[in-house]
Amino acid sequence: MKQSKLFGQTLREAPKDAEAISHIYLARGGFIRQLSSGLFSFLPLGFRVLKNIEKVIREEFDKIGAQELVMPVIHPAEIWKKTGRYHEIGEELWRIKSQGGQELVLSMTHEEAMAEIAFRYIQKYNDLPLLLNQFQIKLRNEARPRGGLLRLREFIMQDAYSFDRSEAEFDKTYKKVFKVYQNIFKRLNLKAVPIKASSGIMGGNESHEFMMPAEIGEDKLDGKNAIELGHTFKLGLKYSKPFNIYFTAKNGKKELAIMGSYGIGLDRLMAATVEAFHDKKGIIWPEPIAPFKIHLIELSAKTDPDVKKQAENIYKKMIAEGTEVLYDDRDDKTAGEKFADADLIGIPLRVVISVKTLEKNSVEMKQRNKESAKLIKISNVGTIF
Amino acid sequence: MKQSKLFGQTLREAPKDAEAISHIYLARGGFIRQLSSGLFSFLPLGFRVLKNIEKVIREEFDKIGAQELVMPVIHPAEIWKKTGRYHEIGEELWRIKSQGGQELVLSMTHEEAMAEIAFRYIQKYNDLPLLLNQFQIKLRNEARPRGGLLRLREFIMQDAYSFDRSEAEFDKTYKKVFKVYQNIFKRLNLKAVPIKASSGIMGGNESHEFMMPAEIGEDKLDGKNAIELGHTFKLGLKYSKPFNIYFTAKNGKKELAIMGSYGIGLDRLMAATVEAFHDKKGIIWPEPIAPFKIHLIELSAKTDPDVKKQAENIYKKMIAEGTEVLYDDRDDKTAGEKFADADLIGIPLRVVISVKTLEKNSVEMKQRNKESAKLIKISNVGTIF
Repeated sequence: MKQSKLFGQTLREAPKDAEAISHIYLARGGFIRQLSSGLFSFLPLGFRVLKNIEKVIREEFDKIGAQELVMPVIHPAEIWKKTGRYHEIGEELWRIKSQGGQELVLSMTHEEAMAEIAFRYIQKYNDLPLLLNQFQIKLRNEARPRGGLLRLREFIMQDAYSFDRSEAEFDKTYKKVFKVYQNIFKRLNLKAVPIKASSGIMGGNESHEFMMPAEIGEDKLDGKNAIELGHTFKLGLKYSKPFNIYFTAKNGKKELAIMGSYGIGLDRLMAATVEAFHDKKGIIWPEPIAPFKIHLIELSAKTDPDVKKQAENIYKKMIAEGTEVLYDDRDDKTAGEKFADADLIGIPLRVVISVKTLEKNSVEMKQRNKESAKLIKISNVGTIF
Repeated sequence: MKQSKLFGQTLREAPKDAEAISHIYLARGGFIRQLSSGLFSFLPLGFRVLKNIEKVIREEFDKIGAQELVMPVIHPAEIWKKTGRYHEIGEELWRIKSQGGQELVLSMTHEEAMAEIAFRYIQKYNDLPLLLNQFQIKLRNEARPRGGLLRLREFIMQDAYSFDRSEAEFDKTYKKVFKVYQNIFKRLNLKAVPIKASSGIMGGNESHEFMMPAEIGEDKLDGKNAIELGHTFKLGLKYSKPFNIYFTAKNGKKELAIMGSYGIGLDRLMAATVEAFHDKKGIIWPEPIAPFKIHLIELSAKTDPDVKKQAENIYKKMIAEGTEVLYDDRDDKTAGEKFADADLIGIPLRVVISVKTLEKNSVEMKQRNKESAKLIKISNVGTIF
């Protein structure tokens, strides 16, 4: 991608109301744009990070045989009445009506919708165990949205649902997903401490929250602030019972499936990553979710058109090799501006080509999280990625 | 994917209210599940088709340099008042309120949200031309949802937005996206006839609808029924003006960008594909969007465990080669049931291994859209995909 064409340039000023450093850097870096309180768009850079997070999560769930589906965000109120949550949950649950007067809700979460489907398709002993996963919008009439992507009225969640035949089988599944969550946070370099938690409005028996220590966090972890990155719920029969999710056991009797649910907020995960990985100049993306792997910067001089030509060649070569590269080809920016933008955007590897580096037939390479740079012969560029 | 594990088995009965053949086959085939009128979930098979449609569309938009972003589905009413659409549109536009009393709407479409972002980031002459694309949910308080996926209250749309500096430049962009739409429909084997249309609630100057002749369609095309697959709009200054999307022209003056928008409903496209490609037995998916490329079926006999063993080997080989294969390994189904399911699900190529084919060291191959089958030596399986 040529930076001269990239939609969403960097901004000098942070949004007035921005307090969280993740909000400030994501907005200034051109990753996100606020539409209203708690409602954000992901601009092309932010969209790429979002898709990378999705990819990491999907890969880990694929490994344990999760099947992906997608459920609507509008639900008939009827299914929320079945579990009692329609009346238990306060104003946070948006209630709307159809033209014909049907009561509907905007999905804060998908346990009811999932249970309704499971009821139809789970029948035999062999239909279980079952693990389903989705990436889908959640909508909450949040009284106090805050912290940029940390507390939203609309957000994208990975939410998985498990169905098992016995407590023992469920325990295995729960541990498996638990491990998947640990793997996901590990791949993103995030310290997520699992702690036992109340299952709150989800109901059920027990739950675990994955907490990342962070000053901006609202939750408490050993007396320190923390951000909740994920939550796993042992739902027991809370949903299976009202939805009649029965399967025929080996002995021919009908038994209720045991349900679990597992969620990670992708927007919040993105923000938490920035909270964990930044410095005074900007973001330092962990490699797996960085919007690009390489930030190629040309510092051309009008007196020496060769820099631009060589930079274009390297860019084309990288593209041909399938390297995800952002190429700063902008003619109206100074070297200082280009470096400042690169630090703000936070791509892991910066490759600079200038009159000076060209004199040595080289480019200058610098990792975003290191201070030192080194010269690499142009002929070697490509062999080292 | 092993069919014994696939969530969403085929159903014998169609939903009671289903009239459209696409609704009947998609529901019976385990692609979709209705949650309420006009609200559907995509089960794993349907989800795969949906993602394949998304992939085809994304690839075509990538070719013309579109950048992807995603905007929220909840908007402040304020931006819809700016264009007047808040009051122009009737009950179809869902209006909700925040806990703090803020007026909000559920997005039927994203012109206003896009214009609000464009206002912030389009400044210079060189920021244009610009083409942005998203895949995002749309919500409509539809009075009469019908036809399964044909008319929904919630659906997934590809919606692109263009910004240009002059009418001449816009004409080029419009033609380019027009061609992209033609390419997309061509890749899906769909006959989509572009016709001039009213721009309706979108406003602007002119628009084109891409219409596919189909009995179930509600629109008219040369006196025949048709389904609208896509719509392209010449929006002119309808949104640029109220949102002040000015750029600095070469002469230093501020000028308004000319806007276009372009949409395809993915759910409806899936339904239209089934309307166009089916027979009395089920769906016949066009290859690019088929949920799997190959349906491997083993017809094992208890007397001959070798069939299962060989089938497993072929399955593993296909997986290793990256072939998208659904493997019918179900022990509780007869040959007749397996064939009926395969015809209903509609995967392009059926590969059968049985005692009979094994006697000739072969598998039987049959294309879903052909009557004749042929034997292929097992040693050659893999070299032919």
